Amino acid sequence: MRGEVSSVNPVSDSPQALYLEDLHVGQHFNSGQYHMEAERMKAFAAEFDPQPFHVDEAAAEHTILRGLAASGWHTAAATMRLLMTGGLPIAGGLIGLSAEMAWPQPTRPGDTLRVESEILEIVPSRSKPDRAVVTVRCITLNQKGEKVQVMTTKIMVFRRPSPTP
Amino acid sequence: MRGEVSSVNPVSDSPQALYLEDLHVGQHFNSGQYHMEAERMKAFAAEFDPQPFHVDEAAAEHTILRGLAASGWHTAAATMRLLMTGGLPIAGGLIGLSAEMAWPQPTRPGDTLRVESEILEIVPSRSKPDRAVVTVRCITLNQKGEKVQVMTTKIMVFRRPSPTP
Repeated sequence: MRGEVSSVNPVSDSPQALYLEDLHVGQHFNSGQYHMEAERMKAFAAEFDPQPFHVDEAAAEHTILRGLAASGWHTAAATMRLLMTGGLPIAGGLIGLSAEMAWPQPTRPGDTLRVESEILEIVPSRSKPDRAVVTVRCITLNQKGEKVQVMTTKIMVFRRPSPTP
Repeated sequence: MRGEVSSVNPVSDSPQALYLEDLHVGQHFNSGQYHMEAERMKAFAAEFDPQPFHVDEAAAEHTILRGLAASGWHTAAATMRLLMTGGLPIAGGLIGLSAEMAWPQPTRPGDTLRVESEILEIVPSRSKPDRAVVTVRCITLNQKGEKVQVMTTKIMVFRRPSPTP
């Protein structure tokens, strides 16, 4: 696991990171890929969401999900990782204010996830002219193109800092 | 970590677990407590949400969060654990269909979280008479009573099975 963790490479501080001026409604972004391993799925669920359909293949067969599925919160966390590692390269990082989410399909062991994002709305702050609240829809897809999570989230995005005189 | 994980005790299969007939709008639930440790916060964030304000105390001081804070997805996962371990004892488990969430305050290292839940709405399925979609508001509070997460979620709840004749 350590090796995998160290491979995370946030781009929020890179020269490619985007400021408010670089964004427009309708803009699209595509993430890299994230592989959902059965063992990590079960360990995540054992810690946070210990339900039979998340932690035990055999028991999961007889549940409403008809087989092992990731906790929705694991899918959400994996989505965040994909957004942070190039999927949504916002300067200063992804400061989430709120999120609405649904899980139309289960995430299964061995699924490879990716995220397609689109900017829906940009609302500049009235009181703080250096920032805006940006609404983004992030659709998490599996390798078959099925939607495993649909999220609409509001994040805070800052203007490009003025050069120091 | 293993010892902590093994202490998770889902109550969804216990005799106290609640079926649809046991629920009513306005019903309240209180969870146990969950301690947010700095090391676990940083490890969770390193894996899923590697931003300076989630992984590095010193760097976090100079960010908008003014100190280390948990990833919102870690707060969400901890909330799920609290719901699963007595906070929302639904028979058959918590099958989440959707969630709306906001994080009004950061979760800090050392915070002890708990969840207060209230049933807002119960909508029986028209096509499947054995179940309903139940809307629940789950407020996650720290030890000072500050709201660190406000979630409204829709879950599927089943009627008590009829005894086999």
